[in-house]
Order: sequence, then C-alpha cells, then structure tokens
Amino acid sequence: MFKKILIANRGEIALRIIRTCKEMGIDTVAIYSTADKDSLHVRFADEAVCIGPPPSNLSYLNIPQIIAAAEITNADAIHPGYGFLAENAEFSQVCQEHNIKFIGASPHMIDQMGDKATAKATMIKAGVPTIPGSKGLLATIEEGIKIANEIKYPVILKATAGGGGKGMRIVNNDGEFKKAWDDARMEAGAAFGNDGLYLEKFIVEPRHIEIQIVGDKNGKACHLSERDCSIQRRHQKLVEETPSPAMTKKLREKMGDAAVKAAEAINYEGAGTVEFLVDKNKDFYFMEMNTRIQVEHPITEQVTDFDLIKEQIKVAAGIEISGKNYYPHLFSMECRINAEDPTADFRPSPGKITNLHLPGGQGVRVDSHVYAGYTIPPNYDSMIAKLIVSAQTREEVIVRMKRALEEFVIEGIKTTIPFHIKLMEDPQFQSGKFTTAFMDTFDLSQIE
Amino acid sequence: MFKKILIANRGEIALRIIRTCKEMGIDTVAIYSTADKDSLHVRFADEAVCIGPPPSNLSYLNIPQIIAAAEITNADAIHPGYGFLAENAEFSQVCQEHNIKFIGASPHMIDQMGDKATAKATMIKAGVPTIPGSKGLLATIEEGIKIANEIKYPVILKATAGGGGKGMRIVNNDGEFKKAWDDARMEAGAAFGNDGLYLEKFIVEPRHIEIQIVGDKNGKACHLSERDCSIQRRHQKLVEETPSPAMTKKLREKMGDAAVKAAEAINYEGAGTVEFLVDKNKDFYFMEMNTRIQVEHPITEQVTDFDLIKEQIKVAAGIEISGKNYYPHLFSMECRINAEDPTADFRPSPGKITNLHLPGGQGVRVDSHVYAGYTIPPNYDSMIAKLIVSAQTREEVIVRMKRALEEFVIEGIKTTIPFHIKLMEDPQFQSGKFTTAFMDTFDLSQIE
Repeated sequence: MFKKILIANRGEIALRIIRTCKEMGIDTVAIYSTADKDSLHVRFADEAVCIGPPPSNLSYLNIPQIIAAAEITNADAIHPGYGFLAENAEFSQVCQEHNIKFIGASPHMIDQMGDKATAKATMIKAGVPTIPGSKGLLATIEEGIKIANEIKYPVILKATAGGGGKGMRIVNNDGEFKKAWDDARMEAGAAFGNDGLYLEKFIVEPRHIEIQIVGDKNGKACHLSERDCSIQRRHQKLVEETPSPAMTKKLREKMGDAAVKAAEAINYEGAGTVEFLVDKNKDFYFMEMNTRIQVEHPITEQVTDFDLIKEQIKVAAGIEISGKNYYPHLFSMECRINAEDPTADFRPSPGKITNLHLPGGQGVRVDSHVYAGYTIPPNYDSMIAKLIVSAQTREEVIVRMKRALEEFVIEGIKTTIPFHIKLMEDPQFQSGKFTTAFMDTFDLSQIE
Repeated sequence: MFKKILIANRGEIALRIIRTCKEMGIDTVAIYSTADKDSLHVRFADEAVCIGPPPSNLSYLNIPQIIAAAEITNADAIHPGYGFLAENAEFSQVCQEHNIKFIGASPHMIDQMGDKATAKATMIKAGVPTIPGSKGLLATIEEGIKIANEIKYPVILKATAGGGGKGMRIVNNDGEFKKAWDDARMEAGAAFGNDGLYLEKFIVEPRHIEIQIVGDKNGKACHLSERDCSIQRRHQKLVEETPSPAMTKKLREKMGDAAVKAAEAINYEGAGTVEFLVDKNKDFYFMEMNTRIQVEHPITEQVTDFDLIKEQIKVAAGIEISGKNYYPHLFSMECRINAEDPTADFRPSPGKITNLHLPGGQGVRVDSHVYAGYTIPPNYDSMIAKLIVSAQTREEVIVRMKRALEEFVIEGIKTTIPFHIKLMEDPQFQSGKFTTAFMDTFDLSQIE
C-alpha cells in the first residue's frame, strides 16, 4: 500500500481524500495556491506545499510544480480528485515517468475516453448502445445533412474536443443546418483549437443516468448501480440521486452490464463513470465516460456502504476486485451548495462566511471544506458544500433534505440553499417524473 | 397523526425530536428554562415557551408549567426525551388526564419497570433470566446473609428506588455485610426517600448489553438487536457500539427473544430498552428496562436505517408494528462528547464555545445542540454532542471515529474528545475483549 499520497486538488474533494487516507493510515500532502492558504485541506493534511498563485494554470494545473512537490515530500502516489488534472493524459504520463502512481486512468485510457468521437467508436465496437449519428468526424456539411435525414431530425452537432456545451448546436431541419454548422465550427475552433464536428440524433427530454464502475489491473470490472443527474442547469448538475426514479430492475441490469462491458472493453483500471441518456421508452445511449471520481460519488457510497476513494486507492495499489456488482439498499440524494445567488441568475457570491451551522442528525452527511470565518476566494468553482441525505424511501429523503437545508446556516454570502428548498417542495420534482429539461421551466422567481 | 408535539426536554435530544417531527410534518413546541434561551432547540422549534428558571425542579421537572405550555399552544402530544420526566409515572398520568398523548410508557408500565424489585419479579414470572438473589425486598439483614450464602459471594446490595450507583454496595463475605447494609440503607434513604434494599449475585466483569425493543397498542413487540455499553465510568456510559463484539448469532436470538418476551409480558407500548449483563460464559441476566428512548439510540438507527423517534411517535399514534425483528447490516459506534476535562477527573467544563468545527464525510453523524458562540450553562448534564460513526467493519468504525474525533474542533472549553482519541488507540479496546471494568484500569494520564 502507498505510504504517502499527494492530493493534486483543493476544496471539499481534497478534504474528502484526506479523510479516507487518514482512515487507511496513509500520510497526505496537500498542495495549495496562495489563495487557498487558509483552506481546511491545508490544515488537515500531514504536509502542505504552496505551488503558486491563482489562476489555476500557475498552480493547480502547473504540472512541473506539482511533480516537484511530490518529489520533495517523497509522495509515492498522486490523487487528482475531479476537475483540474484529473483527466489530463499528459499529467498521468508525467506521473508514470517520475515513478509516482497516478490514482486514476492511464494516459491511453484518458485519451481514448476524452475524445468523444473516439470514445463513441470504442463503445460501438464493444456493443454498448450509442446515439445514432455520424461514424466519427464529419468531413463535409453535405455528409452531415445526409446522415441527419437518415436518422431523422432533430439532431445535434457536437465538437469532438468539446465540453460544457461549447461547440454544440441542435438542428431541427435541413434549413437550419448551414448556420448551425458554421457557428459550431467557429465556437469549437476558438474554444478548443479543434473545429472537428460530429453529429448525433438529439434525444428529446431525456434523463441523465450514469453508472458507477470500478475496474482492476486484470481488466475485471463491476458496477455500483446508477445515479440520476437529470436536475441540471446549463449542463451543470445541481442535484443527484440514487436510485433513479426512472429505474427498473431490468433496466439497471441492462445499463449495468453495458457499463461493465464499456469498462472491460478498454481494460479500465480505477473508478469511473459511464454516462447515459435514457429516453422515455427506457432506451439508453452512451454519452461519455469519466475516468475519475465524480462530484456526486457520495450518494453511491451512502446506498452501498462503499468508500469509493478507498476503492480507487486499493485498485491503484494493485488490489483485485471481486467482480461482484453492488445495488442500492437505501435512497440517497445530494444537493450541491454553491456560493451563488439563485435570485440573480446564480451569480457567484464569493466572500467571507461570517456564521456557519451545519445540519446534523440521522441520514445527513456534509462534505465541505469551509468553516466560520473562511473567505471563499473568487478564483475557483463556487461549490462550497455537498449536502447528502439518505433514508429508506425517496419521499423520506426529500423531507429529510428539506429539513437539513432549513437547518443549514451560512451567513455573509449568498448560497443556493433557498433554491434547493423550493426544489424539494416542487410537486413535479417530488413525483420523480422529470427530464434534463426540468430546470428550463422551473420558476426561479419563487425563491426568496 | 398528531398535529403538534411539545418536547419536554432540552439539548441534543430536543433537537433530535424536532428533526423527526419536521420530517413527519408535525409542528413542534419547545420548552426552555431561562438558562436555555439561546439553545438551538428553541430556535428550530415552531413555537417556544419559557417554563421557568433553573434548577430543573422549577422548569424541566415542573409538571404544571409544562402542561400549561402544552395547553396554551394546543399541543396534542408530549415527547419527554430521556431524563427529566421521561420515566415519571405521575407526569404520564397527568398527561393522560389532560387528554394529551404522552409519547412514552403508561403510568402503570413506568411503575412496574421503575421499581427494580417489582421489575425483577415481573421478569421472573415472564421467564426472562434474572440475576439470582432475593425475591423482592429484604426484610432483615439476617435474610440477606442467608441468601448471600445460598447464591455464593460476591453479592451486591441495591436500593429498590435507586439509580446512578447510589445505595449500591458490593459484599464479598459475611464479615462485610453489616457495614454495607447500613451504608446502603442510609444512602438510599437520603437519595430517594426509600431505604428498601434487595440483593443479587454480583456478576464479575460482565458486559453491559441492551436490546432495543418496540411494542404497539396490541401488545405486540419486536426487537432491533443489541447495543454494547460496557465502556462506562462510574455507571455513566461513555461509548456504545453495535453489534456487540461479544455477540453471536445464537446469543442475539436468545437475548432478543427474552427482550420481546419481557415487553410482551407487560403489554409494553412504545420504544424501550431491556438491559442485560452478559457474563463470560454468554449467560445473560435482566438488569432493568428503560421505558424511554436511550441516549445511545442513534447507533441502532445507523445499522437498521430506522428512525426510532418516528417509531415512537407512530406507535403512540396507534399505528401497529409488523412484529418483524431487525438486524444490523453495518457497524456503528457513539462517543459521548462531554464538556468535561478528562485530564482532571472529568470535571465539568461549562462556558462559552468560541470556535466550533464539526467533523463530516462518509459514515459520520453528529447529534448536537451547540454552535460557535453558544455558552454551555452549568446547570445541566455535560453532554454537548454525540459523535456517531458507521462503517462496514468494527475496525473501520474505529479508524473512522478517530479520524472524526481529530477533525472535531471545540474551543473555549474542555471536552472528552482527547479521551476518546486515546480510547480508539487502545489495543484492548480495539480487540473488543473488555468488560464494564475496562475504565477501572484505563490510564487517563496518557491524555494530553
């Protein structure tokens, strides 16, 4: 087992990883930017190394600095968390070259899954259902129009190097195609330096359901069931839950099998997530594979009793998995508490937390790096806490979440807590019958 | 179902009950003494009524004031929590007379189980194993000596109205009997106004293992397995855990059956706990039955996913139970965090909490009524938080508990956190092989 792990991240996920390392008896090294010197992950790690100022390319994305920190502190592994360098093939490669174990995917796997068109081709080969569309990149606009007519409109144009909605356009008919094609190419070229586009059937009002998987060095994989992440705003997840209200036993088996097949097709090693879109006929389509821990991993932990960070560390250390799948024995939901003003278009609200009271009691878990007196720097992601609630039924989860949200006191800044309270009171949300379009019609003006 | 519940208690248990009421959609009324006006239970209840100053006989034990508060606020039920009036037959009776449902045992049941000699006689009749000893009260010292010789020394003299170690004496031979008899009578008379004594075989180095039960209005009962409360200091529980390291499947069945038999023998309605001593041969003996919720109830909740306060409210409202028993699917442990100085004989350390940081993350639950800036009044029990941890194995619970204790920051006062950290590091504690005598030899000088 590793003796010392450097955590190449900040915020709640850095603290989350430190917690598991402590429980496993592994020493930890925190890295931090000058903006994060008062962060809890710095305080709770065994050692901490300042790796530069914000913005992130000077610190949390600065590979030479991070490798130097690992070498100075004699860390034998690096956990990248999520975001930053978690899915950076070069970083994975450099770690390998410096004989430091990267607790994540190999450079080759990251490359295979990071490029969407390549990922899709891999999945088709493995027999995983994918969204009908072009086989790889579109050479010409004419080819695109031809395929759109074969698979029927609406279709969506996507940038092969894309993410976060950039370089994406929905097209409803031949007449709209030209403008969408030009716009998407230009946007993709500007954002990613790569204007390659591909095309897919646009799934109307789908649910976003993802399967957690773990694979080991022998290429054996298992799944830990699903997470429903359909409550999104501008492709940002706001709330996640498991089991999915749309799930059936049979669908879980089929999607679980597909995810395991996907993982085994690439000899995937580590924890990963296979994201699917599920339409109203319960047909599902591969979207992408994330080769890292997800923000929403704790809901899976709550319903399976697994520690997913521990599993990551174990498989990285060469420990084999049993291959058994895991199924939820409870219901769990996560609300992302962001330092944003939900009454003002979710505008970021950094600043000093003057008063803090965390909710507690049965079925309540808080993963957070903030404390009373902490100043949230404006440089990073606005998520300041994850409120995770579990209970025996979905109905009980919702009332417990509302209770916990009402107990949660964060003063000095605006947060998304009032939004989440209204969401828990929403009859459609309560019914479980919603799609990724839910937030498009959610009335934000009701938030006080 | 009840519309409004008055909570006749304070501190963490009042907040605990409010949380469940909120989740059930039941309004709450807090009562508070003038010393508790800044307490969270006052802030989080829908209504709050001041019922007088400390000491408790002027407020939390003041039955007419509490009934008046319930009538003014139109509460249709009262939850007494633990301690104070939770096992007071008169209070249960007065509630009945005022047509307010007492969420606890009937006056008759409290009487039957509150008087230890009567309780024992009831259990013998029900076929529940009890500690050999006198049948009810001892009329004379001569009778006591005769029985002691029949059941063999050591024996223990106990006050029939007793509790908390008062009026108790261990006797090793005939020569010690007279002094012990006189001392115990005097102490019992002074403490309880009742100097009646009974005698039992003294079980050397036993474990304290209790069974959680729930009974309904039809006299049907079930159990929710055990809690091991052997880590005690001067008869005060410090740490509780489930499953018990001493438990076997067969023993759990036998003890569970005995506890259900005990409950059904008295048509017990509500949540209750049957306490047993278990000796090294796995023979077990009824000690007492608590006709209320226990401080340590959350560990049972963690491993069965039940909300015991909700169960109490449901059976009080007349809802029947299934009769099915519940078994632990996880391991859980509770550390009582007291405002006491463990380096100075656990001397109480009330005062202002200047800084507070609660532990979080997977498997960590905190039940507490305190917050940063809160001043712990000197008038009440010194428990300020319960730290409850769960995991898949006992070993993981211990490392997780240590991790959570190390994260727990309470500044401004002394707490028992440093004691609990040393306890988690103790090899004998880790081995699970200990008895109620464990604390007699625990080296407190190692606490920093």
